[in-house]
Amino acid sequence: MLYVPTLLQAIDLIGTFVFALSGAVAGVRRGLDLFGVLVVALVAAVFGGITRDILIGAVPPDAILHPHYIVLAAAAGLFTFHWYPLVARFTYPVRLFDAAGLALFAVTGTEKALHHGLDGLSAALLGVVTAIGGGVVRDVLLAEVPVVLRSDIYAVAALAGALVIVAGDRLALPEAPIALAGAALCFGLRMLALYRGWQLPASRWHVKSGP
Amino acid sequence: MLYVPTLLQAIDLIGTFVFALSGAVAGVRRGLDLFGVLVVALVAAVFGGITRDILIGAVPPDAILHPHYIVLAAAAGLFTFHWYPLVARFTYPVRLFDAAGLALFAVTGTEKALHHGLDGLSAALLGVVTAIGGGVVRDVLLAEVPVVLRSDIYAVAALAGALVIVAGDRLALPEAPIALAGAALCFGLRMLALYRGWQLPASRWHVKSGP
Amino acid sequence: MLYVPTLLQAIDLIGTFVFALSGAVAGVRRGLDLFGVLVVALVAAVFGGITRDILIGAVPPDAILHPHYIVLAAAAGLFTFHWYPLVARFTYPVRLFDAAGLALFAVTGTEKALHHGLDGLSAALLGVVTAIGGGVVRDVLLAEVPVVLRSDIYAVAALAGALVIVAGDRLALPEAPIALAGAALCFGLRMLALYRGWQLPASRWHVKSGP
Repeated sequence: MLYVPTLLQAIDLIGTFVFALSGAVAGVRRGLDLFGVLVVALVAAVFGGITRDILIGAVPPDAILHPHYIVLAAAAGLFTFHWYPLVARFTYPVRLFDAAGLALFAVTGTEKALHHGLDGLSAALLGVVTAIGGGVVRDVLLAEVPVVLRSDIYAVAALAGALVIVAGDRLALPEAPIALAGAALCFGLRMLALYRGWQLPASRWHVKSGP
Repeated sequence: MLYVPTLLQAIDLIGTFVFALSGAVAGVRRGLDLFGVLVVALVAAVFGGITRDILIGAVPPDAILHPHYIVLAAAAGLFTFHWYPLVARFTYPVRLFDAAGLALFAVTGTEKALHHGLDGLSAALLGVVTAIGGGVVRDVLLAEVPVVLRSDIYAVAALAGALVIVAGDRLALPEAPIALAGAALCFGLRMLALYRGWQLPASRWHVKSGP
Repeated sequence: MLYVPTLLQAIDLIGTFVFALSGAVAGVRRGLDLFGVLVVALVAAVFGGITRDILIGAVPPDAILHPHYIVLAAAAGLFTFHWYPLVARFTYPVRLFDAAGLALFAVTGTEKALHHGLDGLSAALLGVVTAIGGGVVRDVLLAEVPVVLRSDIYAVAALAGALVIVAGDRLALPEAPIALAGAALCFGLRMLALYRGWQLPASRWHVKSGP
């Protein structure tokens, strides 16, 4: 199939690459072998989108049909495996791209769900699943409580961006500027949370006793 | 969409709410932030049904199509996050509702699978998946061995209820009384197991050595 | 439905049984109750194939439609639960059958994906998913980092076998001898890795510090 890169697709590929980097870094830190690092990189990059596509019935999912996602994620994994310190040194740009990937995946995920006729709230939820699914499974594979469930403003930024898309769809506003606004809100919230150290609170009832 | 509550739907909603409570309580205990508690509540409430729907090809799944499940689970998560001691104090009614939810989900899950033309054994298995799937993933997200795999009579009660439905279907008995009988058996077994402390045995070959 | 056993189906059933054994052994070692052992045995045996079928849109998946997989996996679980030392003593034949199951699942998984019109790289990936998916989820359920992500040549052998199938398909070679060649390569690589202690390297950047 012919592959014509556009701006949206370029950002999509950058998001995939950056999410794969996050998976590969986590895999190297846990001492996985080369194959394990590649698998975690792949899963972090494509699991969210695959889950969304399965839930809306769009199978085979995009990431299975179009191998360039897999190739790109594998490249990110291979690169990290061999030059881990280089990737680790570029924490700042990685976080920037990660926030961009989060914003893009939240927006495109929500739009795809709306186009499949889902209700607004369900569509927003699927947008969040698209954006955070890869990171959740990355951590589950490493036998850790997923970091998005216990850390700072991350999934909430994705939800905010997704809700902008849903609101725009309800009001029948033009799609392109609304997508831009949703992505900007998600990206902005995420970057602000990083700089200011914003966190969601844990419950004041959090007790360390066993179940 | 117009939502007409009937007895079955009322029990379905109670089951969803109670399963969400169980997820939220586990999330608060592990110190998750507000979003994490909401996610675990949601997953505990709807993952079993979503898995069943994906496996029988009924996508998008009910819990994605009908947002009131999501809203209800989020409400249970929010409530638990703010008033955890209140929820923890009501352990008895929660267990009662949990057993009711287990019974209902096992029965409705089996029936839905039979209506999609699945074989009896497969349908019973899907009923069990519907009933225990949410609890399994709740524990996986918290990096724990799922409690239903290692504790008392829980999944077995769901299986017993599911098999009643399958037997009734094979014998072409009327659906409503059979559903009631299956749910009553599951509910009764579960409550008896709780009161009597019934447990399935671990293998006598259980050794603590590594793999 | 009539069930006619052929050579391929016989190997398929042996693979299912052996993968179920691996799950049951892991479950007994972690002290799960009988039901937990059965669930882990079932998941280890059928999860890879179910994931492949969901991803290519072939729902309900084979393992759900044809209950003999479930029955066989349950028998393996029950057997292991009661006679664990017997199973543990036969480590050598179990590893042999496990390698055979790996080879068969990689080959049949890739072929099924190709028949559904998937691209070569995607089909190979689905072959690997079919072969290793059960083992990954077995370990996730037991709250461990999946052994295939951190140990010796296992998934790579599956990938090699899958790529043979894809190459044969591209070159329009006859299917049966190519399937045999792919399975032989996977099986041979896996057995050689076991005997020689071949391992994939961990990254030299593996550091034990936290994230």
